[in-house]
Amino acid sequence: MIRHVVMFKIADTFTPPLQTEWLAGLETLVGPVPGLRSLSIGRDLLRAERSWDFALVAEFDTLAHLAAYATHPLHLPLIALSGQHCEHIVSVDYECPDSTAPEMT
Amino acid sequence: MIRHVVMFKIADTFTPPLQTEWLAGLETLVGPVPGLRSLSIGRDLLRAERSWDFALVAEFDTLAHLAAYATHPLHLPLIALSGQHCEHIVSVDYECPDSTAPEMT
Repeated sequence: MIRHVVMFKIADTFTPPLQTEWLAGLETLVGPVPGLRSLSIGRDLLRAERSWDFALVAEFDTLAHLAAYATHPLHLPLIALSGQHCEHIVSVDYECPDSTAPEMT
Repeated sequence: MIRHVVMFKIADTFTPPLQTEWLAGLETLVGPVPGLRSLSIGRDLLRAERSWDFALVAEFDTLAHLAAYATHPLHLPLIALSGQHCEHIVSVDYECPDSTAPEMT
């Protein structure tokens, strides 16, 4: 299983309505996107010095499914939205034991 | 439940042996650290332009448990190690449905 982790530092132009549109869009991806097992997106609570604004944690069956997700028609407008309204977006994609299996728990 | 997501962009000084020591240390935290339900740390596979090096995804019962983790004696040397050998460390901490419950799956 592949865990896809993305962090977003938003710009002032990413207004609350745009954020709501973006979050709602992300919630529609599980199901239609092949191999996407789960997707969680959250807004930072702590607002510490090193805190960014949102983190997305998604799980895919394979790297091929992750690659297809990057160009999926439901995802493209969301990429455009965050790309337009974030100062920084960074990601880490790593091999991870199947989340239904115990994972250092 | 609180999801704690941290991303690391390492410096050249973070040699493979130091990384191994750091990763091994992180694996010891689940169990001794109160309220820490799970912890997953992974090395980036894609090496894309926006890729950083490691992502950590951990889950805590509460924000208070997350706060205690930050000063736990087992964790402090690992914070020192990554702090000393990373160019950037950013985090997002967010409220998340209990991972045992279905989460947009």
